[in-house]
Amino acid sequence: MPSLILSRRDLDFLLHEWLDVESLTKRPRFTEHSRETFDAVLDLAEQIATDHFAPHNRTADLNEPRMVDGKVEMIPEVKKALTVFTDAGLMAGSFDEEYGGMQLPHTVGQAVFAWFKAANVGTSAYPFLTMGNARLLLAHGSQEQIDTYVRPELEGRWFGTMALSEPQAGSSLADITTRAVPQDDGTYRLTGNKMWISGGDHELTENIVHLVLAKIPGGPPGVKGISLFIVPKFLVNDDGSLGERNDVVLAGLNHKMGYRGTTNTLLNFGEGVHTPGGQAGAVGYLVGEQHRGLTYMFHMMNEARIGVGVGATVLGYTGYLHALEYARTRTQGRPAAAKDPASKPVPIVEHADVRRMLLTAKSYVEGGMALGLYCARLVDEEQTAENEADRARAHLLLDMLTPIAKAWPSQWGPVADDLAIQVHGGYGYTRDYPVEQFYRDNRLNPIHEGTQGIQSLDLLGRKVVMQGGSGLALLGETITAATARAAGTEWAGFAADIDAAVARMGAVTATLWGAGDPAVTLANSHVYLEAAGHLVVAWLWLEQALATGTADSDFHQGKRQAARFFWRWELPRVHHRFDLLESLDRTVLDTPDRWL
Amino acid sequence: MPSLILSRRDLDFLLHEWLDVESLTKRPRFTEHSRETFDAVLDLAEQIATDHFAPHNRTADLNEPRMVDGKVEMIPEVKKALTVFTDAGLMAGSFDEEYGGMQLPHTVGQAVFAWFKAANVGTSAYPFLTMGNARLLLAHGSQEQIDTYVRPELEGRWFGTMALSEPQAGSSLADITTRAVPQDDGTYRLTGNKMWISGGDHELTENIVHLVLAKIPGGPPGVKGISLFIVPKFLVNDDGSLGERNDVVLAGLNHKMGYRGTTNTLLNFGEGVHTPGGQAGAVGYLVGEQHRGLTYMFHMMNEARIGVGVGATVLGYTGYLHALEYARTRTQGRPAAAKDPASKPVPIVEHADVRRMLLTAKSYVEGGMALGLYCARLVDEEQTAENEADRARAHLLLDMLTPIAKAWPSQWGPVADDLAIQVHGGYGYTRDYPVEQFYRDNRLNPIHEGTQGIQSLDLLGRKVVMQGGSGLALLGETITAATARAAGTEWAGFAADIDAAVARMGAVTATLWGAGDPAVTLANSHVYLEAAGHLVVAWLWLEQALATGTADSDFHQGKRQAARFFWRWELPRVHHRFDLLESLDRTVLDTPDRWL
Repeated sequence: MPSLILSRRDLDFLLHEWLDVESLTKRPRFTEHSRETFDAVLDLAEQIATDHFAPHNRTADLNEPRMVDGKVEMIPEVKKALTVFTDAGLMAGSFDEEYGGMQLPHTVGQAVFAWFKAANVGTSAYPFLTMGNARLLLAHGSQEQIDTYVRPELEGRWFGTMALSEPQAGSSLADITTRAVPQDDGTYRLTGNKMWISGGDHELTENIVHLVLAKIPGGPPGVKGISLFIVPKFLVNDDGSLGERNDVVLAGLNHKMGYRGTTNTLLNFGEGVHTPGGQAGAVGYLVGEQHRGLTYMFHMMNEARIGVGVGATVLGYTGYLHALEYARTRTQGRPAAAKDPASKPVPIVEHADVRRMLLTAKSYVEGGMALGLYCARLVDEEQTAENEADRARAHLLLDMLTPIAKAWPSQWGPVADDLAIQVHGGYGYTRDYPVEQFYRDNRLNPIHEGTQGIQSLDLLGRKVVMQGGSGLALLGETITAATARAAGTEWAGFAADIDAAVARMGAVTATLWGAGDPAVTLANSHVYLEAAGHLVVAWLWLEQALATGTADSDFHQGKRQAARFFWRWELPRVHHRFDLLESLDRTVLDTPDRWL
Repeated sequence: MPSLILSRRDLDFLLHEWLDVESLTKRPRFTEHSRETFDAVLDLAEQIATDHFAPHNRTADLNEPRMVDGKVEMIPEVKKALTVFTDAGLMAGSFDEEYGGMQLPHTVGQAVFAWFKAANVGTSAYPFLTMGNARLLLAHGSQEQIDTYVRPELEGRWFGTMALSEPQAGSSLADITTRAVPQDDGTYRLTGNKMWISGGDHELTENIVHLVLAKIPGGPPGVKGISLFIVPKFLVNDDGSLGERNDVVLAGLNHKMGYRGTTNTLLNFGEGVHTPGGQAGAVGYLVGEQHRGLTYMFHMMNEARIGVGVGATVLGYTGYLHALEYARTRTQGRPAAAKDPASKPVPIVEHADVRRMLLTAKSYVEGGMALGLYCARLVDEEQTAENEADRARAHLLLDMLTPIAKAWPSQWGPVADDLAIQVHGGYGYTRDYPVEQFYRDNRLNPIHEGTQGIQSLDLLGRKVVMQGGSGLALLGETITAATARAAGTEWAGFAADIDAAVARMGAVTATLWGAGDPAVTLANSHVYLEAAGHLVVAWLWLEQALATGTADSDFHQGKRQAARFFWRWELPRVHHRFDLLESLDRTVLDTPDRWL
């Protein structure tokens, strides 16, 4: 039986038949690699995800981490699974060989890690955060910081966090109040409370490397006064051994609807519970320069946002695969044409409405996977393309696509899980079947790493106007390069519809920014995000359809059918949204609180 | 502070400013009533819901019913609340005085009961099922059956169930296998297994009255061979006292994602665990005639479907009210125009995207409430209108609207809860706030009492073609009577858009039924249901807007703004759906299983 976690066949299609990741092996960074090494690591990921991550997904949901005597207790399966993961070298998969990594292309690395998210999103969050943390330090930390913190992270001995939010400041980082006071020895002492810190405390590893946003007194107000600090749970001696306990303590755990396997914490910094060096205050080490913390953090956040998008996709993907399996084995009712009540019930997949749900979900999750891997491919281009112009183009396009890569799957991945429950009927609503957990788990994704609203402001308020609109122009060119390839094929009509939508997006963007009042321009940013997202995924469905060429296996036919579905059923939805935006609709803007 | 359970102001608007329920007091059945008695019972409902239902909503979620030694154990708060409810006479609220009822109009009864569903849907399910059970027996049972079973139900001494589904036959009742063998004394003995039976066992009442669908051997196959039986948990002596334990036993409990306070059971009939009269087999009493069980059950189901729709609405409604309250008190960030990071954070309701979410939710839940109460008003018309023609019209229109009244709120009520979580941000995803429970609870509604797919087949396959399309024609006339009243008002444009959608619905229906192949006609029935639902609710928003007249309170302004929102943001969605239907799109139909 094929896996119900993810479809390896689809990943192979996306990686090889479409994105041609094998061509990357010609580049200096990837010369050690080949189709065989890519296959081997994907095989390994599937096997470990299947054998060590999936089996405790429900157990972790039923037995969430607890705070006992100030420590986090959790089921032992989490540590066992993560040990297998790190022992297999997967923590460092796409990192430099110099740091013990495999130097995999990001595109392959994203596909590899997708297995773990789909199998057990709660457990996978620990390495996910650690890899993001390590990547940020590699980009912006000093060599000493890299040697001290990144190496143990990539060996899986220490895990990392990103500590941004505070109880009074979720999305609004300008309002954080954690203070970092410079000390004579060049370190800082941090004081404040951080909220929503995933992996913020646990006994999985001997140390935890917090990356903390804080303000240095006297700095500029708002986001321009934010600096970034390394705050380890245990201070580290010069020889790399653990020293004193730092003054950062677990203040409480958040109890969530889903995603329960991931400890989510409230952390107190500098309350004097511990006194490193005989002094209260959490010892922190500045990363890079003062007041540039948010810029550095966005380096990690952009990667995290694409990763969250992939997570939302694969939670929907595994829901879809479970629903498909259920629909093929559960018999009930008869086709509309067969009215004889004595005839045998058929598998429910034969009912058109069940197929509607499955095809809808397929178009969302395979579309989302294409989006995630396309963005990962851009990361590879950004870092390893031969000339600077190509790297800059990839960087710009990735910047443009990031809010969509985060938000689109976070909106439609949960819908795939909703449909997966519906396909199961009453059984899907019980805890005897896994789909209800996928649904609960996936509900986090529209919230964390920047809500949908934040992503919509990023897209319309920043990305489409950056560099004089060159990001938007590049997206348009990239899409129309694909639609041009559709000329003379059965996809010409799809391409024409996409072209029309691209043209509208340009016109609507101009109208919005011509409104003369940013409040009016941005009032309906969420609608803009939805339209742009559907347009982008329509383009990626066209790309997939074209990549099937003349292959006529069931797999390829299914790809083409899902592309047709997205063309006929989903793409037309953008026009109502563009109509609304074009009218500079003020309904929301003109609604005072007292009318609600 | 206004209630966060429901809005009494809105109920008063719908009942009095729009539906004019006071005019019902001129009819013989309701002469004892007045605005004052309606107000008093609504006050009572709010008070009992607030004091006795809402407080244990989370407790019941955290401590779901358990099976201990073959019995159902649950938290004592459920029984206490239901005792207060029945002691207040609310179980019999809209029933005849002859049976101890208040003879309230259904419209008022629906508004009254909405308080309990919104406050605690799990606990409210027991009386909800009991009332439906009693109403069915009143319509189709013998006088002896009514005296024996209905009276104790309406006194709250016994509760009732509806036992339709079986493990192998959820939506497909044609395939039930529970057998009922006639006995010499006129009773039947039932053998079989029933699944998903809410309230199927508990210790809340001394007896439980199961209404069970079963097949009498030798009857016709399929749904035409289904009969309906009363199967009490305890047999009843001639004097009304309890006799022997009947042979129906609890086989297990289902553990759900939400709606946990309602015991959901697997029941075994006739396995010989008990031997009433010295013989294995559950003793059953035929209701009405043989083989007409499904017809009778639909009497209960249609009412239950409207009730489920109201439940989905009010779970969304309470989510909306909680989100609104949160948005008004939680401060974070600044308006787009105020860029000074040192300025004070504002309540998040001031952010346009938060208002978008709230206004969207408001348009769904107030639209859903209008739909539910409009249907309840049709029940009153159907039963008490002065002449037969009016009663028949009301019956026909209600029949037409029932699948929409069930399915539309079941689709959009959960979206309101989804938005309520999103407004709360990370806090909404935690179990410290109630919205995540509303979201989980509400996910049941698209499944039970006929899935969305079943409702769509009912609408397109049956309702729009019944009586030569007269139901559809009546709906159209009813809507255009409202749009005509909009002439010369600010709502003329809204009315014109509704008229256009009505015309399209007629044309599309003709196209679909002209396809010449029922498989093609019905393939996209869910799309049809969605379009019809949005059109109907748009009409009900126009009705509400017109009902505000020239009143200019914040409440009325808010009503009008939500109507504008539904007009500009929601109604246009129908056209993409009608386009798809008009094209007789075969994408889903032509997708073989192997392509998925």
